[in-house]
Amino acid sequence: MSIIGHLINGEDIQLDEPKQSVFNPATGEAEKSVLLASASTVEQAIASAQAAFPQWRATPPIKRARIMFRFKELLEQNADEICRLIGQEHGKISHDAAGELQRGIENVEFACGAPQLLKGEHSRNVGPGIDSWSEFQPLGVVAGITPFNFPAMVPMWMFPLAIVCGNTFVLKPSERDPSSTLFIAKLLHQAGLPPGVLNVVNGDKIAVDTLLTDERVKAVSFVGSTPIAEYIYATASANGKRCQALGGAKNHAIIMPDADMDNAVNQLLGAAFGSSGERCMALSVAVAVGDEAADALVAKMKQAMTGLSVGAYDNASNDFGPVITCQHKDKVNGFISSAEQQGATVVVDGRNPKVEGYDNGYFVGATLIDGVTAEMDSYKAEIFGPVLQVVRVKTMQEAMQLIDDHEYGNGTCIFTRDGEAARYFSDHIQVGMVGINVPLPVPVAYHSFGGWKRSLFGDLHAYGPDGVRFYTKRKTITQRWPSSGVREGASFSFPS
Amino acid sequence: MSIIGHLINGEDIQLDEPKQSVFNPATGEAEKSVLLASASTVEQAIASAQAAFPQWRATPPIKRARIMFRFKELLEQNADEICRLIGQEHGKISHDAAGELQRGIENVEFACGAPQLLKGEHSRNVGPGIDSWSEFQPLGVVAGITPFNFPAMVPMWMFPLAIVCGNTFVLKPSERDPSSTLFIAKLLHQAGLPPGVLNVVNGDKIAVDTLLTDERVKAVSFVGSTPIAEYIYATASANGKRCQALGGAKNHAIIMPDADMDNAVNQLLGAAFGSSGERCMALSVAVAVGDEAADALVAKMKQAMTGLSVGAYDNASNDFGPVITCQHKDKVNGFISSAEQQGATVVVDGRNPKVEGYDNGYFVGATLIDGVTAEMDSYKAEIFGPVLQVVRVKTMQEAMQLIDDHEYGNGTCIFTRDGEAARYFSDHIQVGMVGINVPLPVPVAYHSFGGWKRSLFGDLHAYGPDGVRFYTKRKTITQRWPSSGVREGASFSFPS
Amino acid sequence: MSIIGHLINGEDIQLDEPKQSVFNPATGEAEKSVLLASASTVEQAIASAQAAFPQWRATPPIKRARIMFRFKELLEQNADEICRLIGQEHGKISHDAAGELQRGIENVEFACGAPQLLKGEHSRNVGPGIDSWSEFQPLGVVAGITPFNFPAMVPMWMFPLAIVCGNTFVLKPSERDPSSTLFIAKLLHQAGLPPGVLNVVNGDKIAVDTLLTDERVKAVSFVGSTPIAEYIYATASANGKRCQALGGAKNHAIIMPDADMDNAVNQLLGAAFGSSGERCMALSVAVAVGDEAADALVAKMKQAMTGLSVGAYDNASNDFGPVITCQHKDKVNGFISSAEQQGATVVVDGRNPKVEGYDNGYFVGATLIDGVTAEMDSYKAEIFGPVLQVVRVKTMQEAMQLIDDHEYGNGTCIFTRDGEAARYFSDHIQVGMVGINVPLPVPVAYHSFGGWKRSLFGDLHAYGPDGVRFYTKRKTITQRWPSSGVREGASFSFPS
Amino acid sequence: MSIIGHLINGEDIQLDEPKQSVFNPATGEAEKSVLLASASTVEQAIASAQAAFPQWRATPPIKRARIMFRFKELLEQNADEICRLIGQEHGKISHDAAGELQRGIENVEFACGAPQLLKGEHSRNVGPGIDSWSEFQPLGVVAGITPFNFPAMVPMWMFPLAIVCGNTFVLKPSERDPSSTLFIAKLLHQAGLPPGVLNVVNGDKIAVDTLLTDERVKAVSFVGSTPIAEYIYATASANGKRCQALGGAKNHAIIMPDADMDNAVNQLLGAAFGSSGERCMALSVAVAVGDEAADALVAKMKQAMTGLSVGAYDNASNDFGPVITCQHKDKVNGFISSAEQQGATVVVDGRNPKVEGYDNGYFVGATLIDGVTAEMDSYKAEIFGPVLQVVRVKTMQEAMQLIDDHEYGNGTCIFTRDGEAARYFSDHIQVGMVGINVPLPVPVAYHSFGGWKRSLFGDLHAYGPDGVRFYTKRKTITQRWPSSGVREGASFSFPS
Repeated sequence: MSIIGHLINGEDIQLDEPKQSVFNPATGEAEKSVLLASASTVEQAIASAQAAFPQWRATPPIKRARIMFRFKELLEQNADEICRLIGQEHGKISHDAAGELQRGIENVEFACGAPQLLKGEHSRNVGPGIDSWSEFQPLGVVAGITPFNFPAMVPMWMFPLAIVCGNTFVLKPSERDPSSTLFIAKLLHQAGLPPGVLNVVNGDKIAVDTLLTDERVKAVSFVGSTPIAEYIYATASANGKRCQALGGAKNHAIIMPDADMDNAVNQLLGAAFGSSGERCMALSVAVAVGDEAADALVAKMKQAMTGLSVGAYDNASNDFGPVITCQHKDKVNGFISSAEQQGATVVVDGRNPKVEGYDNGYFVGATLIDGVTAEMDSYKAEIFGPVLQVVRVKTMQEAMQLIDDHEYGNGTCIFTRDGEAARYFSDHIQVGMVGINVPLPVPVAYHSFGGWKRSLFGDLHAYGPDGVRFYTKRKTITQRWPSSGVREGASFSFPS
Repeated sequence: MSIIGHLINGEDIQLDEPKQSVFNPATGEAEKSVLLASASTVEQAIASAQAAFPQWRATPPIKRARIMFRFKELLEQNADEICRLIGQEHGKISHDAAGELQRGIENVEFACGAPQLLKGEHSRNVGPGIDSWSEFQPLGVVAGITPFNFPAMVPMWMFPLAIVCGNTFVLKPSERDPSSTLFIAKLLHQAGLPPGVLNVVNGDKIAVDTLLTDERVKAVSFVGSTPIAEYIYATASANGKRCQALGGAKNHAIIMPDADMDNAVNQLLGAAFGSSGERCMALSVAVAVGDEAADALVAKMKQAMTGLSVGAYDNASNDFGPVITCQHKDKVNGFISSAEQQGATVVVDGRNPKVEGYDNGYFVGATLIDGVTAEMDSYKAEIFGPVLQVVRVKTMQEAMQLIDDHEYGNGTCIFTRDGEAARYFSDHIQVGMVGINVPLPVPVAYHSFGGWKRSLFGDLHAYGPDGVRFYTKRKTITQRWPSSGVREGASFSFPS
Repeated sequence: MSIIGHLINGEDIQLDEPKQSVFNPATGEAEKSVLLASASTVEQAIASAQAAFPQWRATPPIKRARIMFRFKELLEQNADEICRLIGQEHGKISHDAAGELQRGIENVEFACGAPQLLKGEHSRNVGPGIDSWSEFQPLGVVAGITPFNFPAMVPMWMFPLAIVCGNTFVLKPSERDPSSTLFIAKLLHQAGLPPGVLNVVNGDKIAVDTLLTDERVKAVSFVGSTPIAEYIYATASANGKRCQALGGAKNHAIIMPDADMDNAVNQLLGAAFGSSGERCMALSVAVAVGDEAADALVAKMKQAMTGLSVGAYDNASNDFGPVITCQHKDKVNGFISSAEQQGATVVVDGRNPKVEGYDNGYFVGATLIDGVTAEMDSYKAEIFGPVLQVVRVKTMQEAMQLIDDHEYGNGTCIFTRDGEAARYFSDHIQVGMVGINVPLPVPVAYHSFGGWKRSLFGDLHAYGPDGVRFYTKRKTITQRWPSSGVREGASFSFPS
Repeated sequence: MSIIGHLINGEDIQLDEPKQSVFNPATGEAEKSVLLASASTVEQAIASAQAAFPQWRATPPIKRARIMFRFKELLEQNADEICRLIGQEHGKISHDAAGELQRGIENVEFACGAPQLLKGEHSRNVGPGIDSWSEFQPLGVVAGITPFNFPAMVPMWMFPLAIVCGNTFVLKPSERDPSSTLFIAKLLHQAGLPPGVLNVVNGDKIAVDTLLTDERVKAVSFVGSTPIAEYIYATASANGKRCQALGGAKNHAIIMPDADMDNAVNQLLGAAFGSSGERCMALSVAVAVGDEAADALVAKMKQAMTGLSVGAYDNASNDFGPVITCQHKDKVNGFISSAEQQGATVVVDGRNPKVEGYDNGYFVGATLIDGVTAEMDSYKAEIFGPVLQVVRVKTMQEAMQLIDDHEYGNGTCIFTRDGEAARYFSDHIQVGMVGINVPLPVPVAYHSFGGWKRSLFGDLHAYGPDGVRFYTKRKTITQRWPSSGVREGASFSFPS
């Protein structure tokens, strides 16, 4: 059984450390195992990053960017292999993995613009003969801690931008599906990255806590669940670091009576069930305004869902794959059952689907539940499974109140043709990423990703312009050149 | 004895709460007392800010900005009164108070540009027929906690910008000199600010902790000492808030052999002793490169310091005033004595100066200490008094190492004529605000203020462009309008 | 009879020059006369601006901006007098003049942000140890040539921004209504502007040509009719100057079948007839999609127009005033008659209205013409009178084609509730300023004003961010500081 | 003899048109000939670009950018062939061609950032419930006219950026060395560019005039000599187009007494003689401050120049190659002779060098002339040959006056160690591109290129941020969505 180690200072590292199995969720078999880094292994990675920093910081941004240009080429050339690795360990179907990878590549494309993005502000004559300007300098060693559900994309939200800004990086990917992440990290070295600039350590809480407390680490980016995000943010901050920690979500779509219903249904199919709903932007609640809209929605969804097929990653005709673990399958099923018990109607039941040849896979079929209310457990929690719940309300205002009352505020969407409804919604809703007839309003790479309320802790969003600001510190220089003949009187007042 | 209360919902509030004396540091007499808010008083202020938020958020930025235009006029018209209030409670001389006020006004001027500063980014065709844009929306209730040393300026680093961005504000100024702050807050109401948008509560740790833990407060800006800054940052972050906490400083000037020495001495006089050195940007250490430069510096400084006069705020011929409290006077004197005991030479001794008619004032005269080393207690600490210490080094590299080794990284300066030395210094020094022949490199209001290392906790600096980003949250909208005839197929892949 | 002269180098100048009468268009009487500058007078103004430039250029932007802060106060304090002067010479009603003035003041507010707006771009390490940055430096002497219809606003689109950027200015306002412009220019001096920075010369083509050909003038901003704009652009360019020349307009509103018709009618009343239609953004053509919409529109407009009253500027209950000259009145009436003769229906006829006590005023009442087609003379020309023409089309596409086929492309608007229609319209229409349910889509001062097609010649729009770029020239500095020990080999290749 | 045709709508086009020989300047032999397009051929190219525009405009910027990513790869893979083609027709040595190409590629890299660069500005609530934003939309068909001296780089200053902004392009390269330009254009098609988006026509004044007058062409970018630039600017403007026309140069370096002389000499060698001085940024005048500096400079230059070798492009040990034509060789020699006759001293004489095996080549050797004055013909003109002239002055002020008095203002440089001198120089000198110890201060691709005075006509510089603005037109949309219940009163005043 192959063992997945670490990538430190440009080299594969395998040490005598505890291991954890890495499963193929379609078969339920453990085909590989991954090392769990000790504190000293993580410290070695940090030290490697620390050592690489001065030289990397001094490398002109355009030279750093050119490595990203080559990285993009290599990612495209190796797309199939990356998707295969994602499929084997995460379970998502190849076309979905390709979509994830493409989104990751878009962040590399954005990072290629570093020379433009790193421009500071220059002011001539802030006073007579005095100039002032700001530079955005790199922080030093920064860390990223990433989740299982996007093993290629989420790491690429972080390290390309951090690195192109002049930082060095220690990445701790999810221990459930680390292979594609490691493979990608090696491609970056192949593209010309000097050793030590990007290090990958696999591990668990020990690795995380080492990154959060080591004083050489200047900043931490995290994506995961809200309780962990909260812990990361509090701990990193208490250790004096800057931190952005992205947590959970419960994304609602409002279906207005004037919505193009066929379009909405088509959009919801992918947004709710794609990647088995294991996306922080998955659209898991449809809020129908008026029973007429609700009835139409449920009928059309039910009909449309008959065409969906769940199965293994390597059959491209499948729509989505298994969930990540056996325990998670049970949890998702449990939420479906609890909704049923608490009074909702399971319109389409995805529990225990039959997937030919994959009896031990962690599959849950596409599920539609009608008549869900805000009090139900299945509504309150982020299920992270292929389950779409329908809540029925009487007015748009009621729908918006529901969304605003939820603890999460990651993404949301409205389906309507009406300009006024869309503007009122996007202006007032307490959610960070808003779609208008767009069910997965993930910002493109040149904007920034972030939720509101308990979906994000920190003041800067991930990637895009906010990412550049997060991965740099401002230095402001004020300059005056005395001319030989000039002698000025001392001033005891605060300069005005 | 007059009692200083709170300003909540546009009204003066005096409650039955504990009081603390407010002293005139030039006379040592307690002429007023200030209420220390209970938790419920602070909560009342927060509730007032919360209630004012929806209406204020909906007010167009240009209308908000126009209140700032009027506020600027009122500040200028009332400058004398503001400076008098500062002088009475803080002790700084009127010309110095005027400088502080002017710097505060510059932040109001910057806030007048809100409509320009709040522009979001718009992208047409992020995909076919899909547009995306970002808005910078206000956070809600935000809090500011400010220090005694700039009772007018530091609050105006915060609330004008926060408010013009659409937030409502609760300010807790220093309980040592709250009157000018309160006066200024009232002027803003006179300029047309609706009640509840800016609230001022006086208090101590109880007030602070209430602001840090109340979940209605979305962000906290702090300026003070590093231990408190660290506490504020950790506590606010653990409570899920965004936070920027500015702490202490130890600002060094490097005196290069080629420096224009007369100019440097003139600049240092004000930078070291102005406002009795009670500035986080005070220049308290001169690092002379080579004994020749050091000898010249000490001789010229000694000579120049003979002209300095310390005294009460209302005599404009004084150069600087008393320190803030009796205890602080003792502490400053203690550092001078410790340097002496640890081997340094007190060239000019400001301990216990004679100030005619002010026998009980907390005065310390301008003090020059030569031969200071990095091991001395007086070097390690931020003295916050009119004390300039000279450290002698052999090379510029040694000088830079000294600066980089210090825990603080707020401001620094180099005196030289040489372009190469200046550029090397500004590029590499681990300090956030760098002066080249400018001893107090406080960024102008349209840049941003912030130190590095343990001088600032957080990722965004104070005021200027960073201030706008700190006081707003990003919302990204992605919009597609379906045309009636179009029906698109569902996509189960992550959109690329 | 009072004589209106020039303002050169801060002084009122009256020379022995030809004069032209300035009429009160409500009475038809010539109450004042204005001097028409000779070439040498204009050259004197240019020389004055040239002489003032070096000192003004060296004044820090924040100091320049503070004069604009005071200018804003003075404009607000003198609003009544300014509106009176506008009304007397232009004829617009006081409430309309106040609106114009307010729009002008908004450009002054924008100019107050100069320090932020003038920031250049700074890049550290464009190569190893090499920095590069851009500064936006003033041009020198720039000229503005402005039309009669906004004697306060259009000049304030130009000179506040040009001046705050560090340029000096020669303004040639319309000779029909110069008094408010001159009054405003004097207020700016009262606000602290040094003599020579802003000069006003009254005149005709001689003055214009002098400005266009004098080599000391570096840039020309013009607003007027298209034939003149074209002449200005060609002539200024042939003389090596940068130029922006804004010309005529024919602004269409599309009325979609789903429009909120009452709202559309209310909006159109002001947009079509306000200021007698003498606005380059006046909405003079309503394109109704479908006869049902057209019939409703015409019926409701006819009804709504019964409430309109035309009269003299000083009666605030009037809706709009006379047109600018007797000749222009005849021209407007002529277009109405021609439409009638060419087959259109004059639904409401404003020719020769009765205005009690103003028998000789140049009044035209609000006029509504139905059944207009693209072939009619009244459709092709910019009438610049209170005439709204209705064109009936069958589809939105046909409406858009009509707009795109017109030679002008200044402003346009669509009335609809439909998001898709609005987006398709705003994306594709060949017009520079687009309203969605906003009939006069004049960009706010912090955006920029400009049409497309033959409505604007040049590459940068007026005021706002484009204005800053127009009034500055880019200087890019690349800097390397050789260190003493370093000697580099010569490179004969183009540096890469 | 091979014939070089046009590239229209993605196809090689050879028509029955007049031809002109294309020479190898090292051998003096005509190895190819180039077609000179008739007006109808150019119109065909314009029509092709016009036809391709709607689809290309609708292509999302990120898709357009990805073609540029692939273009960069292809340029790098084909670098040798491109350099060979440049060398054969232009004569520059392979290492110099590689430098030129690399600079061109940098503009492609910048163009890859289009999605970020094309962002518009979005303002929420410019009034209650009213939003406004600006989009930067493509112009349509734009034209580029480029010179012989950089057949790869200058075209790539233009078309990659214009195209990535959504425009379609007609390029007329120099008829002296069109092959590398055509080759590059074909690579862009290979990278995926749709036919018609980029068209290349070879030709002379007929082609130029067609581009300048055809109304389908919306903008013209030109680089060449000042008289032609002036003609282009006047003609394009008179035809209502936007235009940027870059002309000649006379770039001075000030050698201060404190300069690092060895470094200055090393830098000047390449800057004066590289590419035979046929660069608009060539450093052709050294202004030495003080005779001591002048004597040292001349002595060291003379010594250093002994190592230079002139010869054919394919021998990489050569420092530079022939000039472009026989006539030009005679002209350069003539300027050297005229300086001699007018009193200057030819220290190193490059007239008629012996180049083994290339008797008919158009070679001029590196030439150094001392004692040049502002009155000499060789000083006034742009020689465009490998000739460095030394002017001796007494003060820096005199040196700056000399530079400011020259009609050109493209580039300039100062060699000094002194911060004050450098800042004074860069602030005040009337030149658009300033080097501090950098003799060829060509802005990097993410800044913009442009001279002042008669070196550039237009308001926006070439490439970089200004290039984006030049190749786009601003559209400002103002949007309000009426809510059903709301009816607002009409307003006859100008909205404030």
